[in-house]
Amino acid sequence: MKALVIGLGALGTVYSCLLSLAGHEVTGLSRPASVDEIRSNGVKVTGIWGAHRTKLANVVSDVSELAGQTFDMIIVTVKSFITEEIAEKIAPLVGDTTFVFLLQNGYGNFEAAAKSILEEKLVLGRVIFGAETLAPGESKVTVIADDVLIGSPKKLIDPVLLDEFARIFSKALIPTVASTEIMQYIWGKIIYNSALNSLGSIFEVSYGELAKEPVTRELMNKIIREIFDLLQARNIPMFWPDAQTYLLNFYDYLLPPTSAHHSSMLQDIRSGRQTEIEALNGAVVKLAHESRVPVPVNEIIVAMVKAKESFSLRTKEG
Amino acid sequence: MKALVIGLGALGTVYSCLLSLAGHEVTGLSRPASVDEIRSNGVKVTGIWGAHRTKLANVVSDVSELAGQTFDMIIVTVKSFITEEIAEKIAPLVGDTTFVFLLQNGYGNFEAAAKSILEEKLVLGRVIFGAETLAPGESKVTVIADDVLIGSPKKLIDPVLLDEFARIFSKALIPTVASTEIMQYIWGKIIYNSALNSLGSIFEVSYGELAKEPVTRELMNKIIREIFDLLQARNIPMFWPDAQTYLLNFYDYLLPPTSAHHSSMLQDIRSGRQTEIEALNGAVVKLAHESRVPVPVNEIIVAMVKAKESFSLRTKEG
Repeated sequence: MKALVIGLGALGTVYSCLLSLAGHEVTGLSRPASVDEIRSNGVKVTGIWGAHRTKLANVVSDVSELAGQTFDMIIVTVKSFITEEIAEKIAPLVGDTTFVFLLQNGYGNFEAAAKSILEEKLVLGRVIFGAETLAPGESKVTVIADDVLIGSPKKLIDPVLLDEFARIFSKALIPTVASTEIMQYIWGKIIYNSALNSLGSIFEVSYGELAKEPVTRELMNKIIREIFDLLQARNIPMFWPDAQTYLLNFYDYLLPPTSAHHSSMLQDIRSGRQTEIEALNGAVVKLAHESRVPVPVNEIIVAMVKAKESFSLRTKEG
Repeated sequence: MKALVIGLGALGTVYSCLLSLAGHEVTGLSRPASVDEIRSNGVKVTGIWGAHRTKLANVVSDVSELAGQTFDMIIVTVKSFITEEIAEKIAPLVGDTTFVFLLQNGYGNFEAAAKSILEEKLVLGRVIFGAETLAPGESKVTVIADDVLIGSPKKLIDPVLLDEFARIFSKALIPTVASTEIMQYIWGKIIYNSALNSLGSIFEVSYGELAKEPVTRELMNKIIREIFDLLQARNIPMFWPDAQTYLLNFYDYLLPPTSAHHSSMLQDIRSGRQTEIEALNGAVVKLAHESRVPVPVNEIIVAMVKAKESFSLRTKEG
């Protein structure tokens, strides 16, 4: 397979390295500052799936360098707020047999990419293994909550084909399963992150501390109930019949294994990077306004994370 | 005059020192840990009103030590969340000619004190000069926004008598004026603090930064509009006809002189002390529930300050 991995951060490094070692021809698209280093040193993965190192077939810093090429799979690992821009750039590389895998966080990546790429070319992935960047092109896989799931949100892709792709990823050491209900899993992850990632970044405490403190626990309950109101108003199916059932599952099963975890959004804020709040609580607020569902708690959470983002940038500039 | 000053923190030190130097017989009630030090070293005031030092007639750590005595004025400077407890303790010291001055923050001090002391004995003060504790019994006056105002919330006290007290304080170097509209001034200060003190403690930035950042500015607008909705629903008169007029005054006149100021609530949180959130946004929420006025933003602000309080305590204990 000829693969293009967009973004060689923590996740892109894992995919490019492991697919390359599984025998595929992998091109990586990296930030200009890291291209030379990754080109000469290759990509490296350590952690739970073992230690691996290889050189990529090609490393570029701009899509224009790939003009005229097509790929069997294009794997997008960039932050959700640049999905639209990236999709427009890679659209010319999408041929008849190409599939584009959006392995990103939050809501809106499919919609943003679909502005430039046909919906039947787009595969959404729900990734809940965690990787950290140790250096450019060097990632450590630190935690695996579950298999990666891939699927077509509108069921526009032959399930047999998706199963084949799942096998390709799994053979490359990344356990992957195709699902016909990918949006339900994506929403499950959005709800989890909208409660924990945002509050974790506001209070700068671990997920476990948010759950232990009654006041933040009640705030999370409100955030989650508002999202369920929204999903119900929009007739978006969920595995859980109601917010209460989700909450039981959330506190008893989903949260405990990650209770020592700190919000990645907080790491973004501290590093002066833009957060993905617009794809989490921000997306909830946007959809809720369309559907006229009141989500006052999510609204304030968005405002607070944005304020924190902005104060942190000012401190860095000052 | 025979005066009792309850609490020898920043404000109590200023009042006990300056009243004592003006010739009054002043007893101070202090935390047990500081009694010996203040008894032997006296009280000291520096800053805007000059440098002053004196010994108090008496320093005690418990009201029981004053059994049998009565006072002309009892000045209460403790945090709002112990007003009820303190009022119950000092009630036996309130004689026919005693007045109790509540020089505290937020809403609810009059109501809490009135559970043990007759309303016609209670004077509310609006203090907007600032003092810092440098050491036990040592205060620095750092800023004076306006004269102290004193008054009877229900207009139960002869204005001539209140004028006399105002002259006594003013002669002791603390510029003080009696007002028949004390509650309007108290509410003015509550609104100001509910917007700035709470958000300043959540984001750990100065008042000026809160005003400069559009997202927190909009949050303050929402907090203030909700409080005006409440005041209007309860027919509480205000100097400003509506929230919009207050907001103009707030950003143009009230806030700029204090733009470098950091929230005292943040200092409380960092020191592991309980904050006065229940007398600010917390009081707004309580009154709003009674009057069935929706105040969702104030509700979340209260939750967030409480969460921050609690996380800070845990960090200190941990």
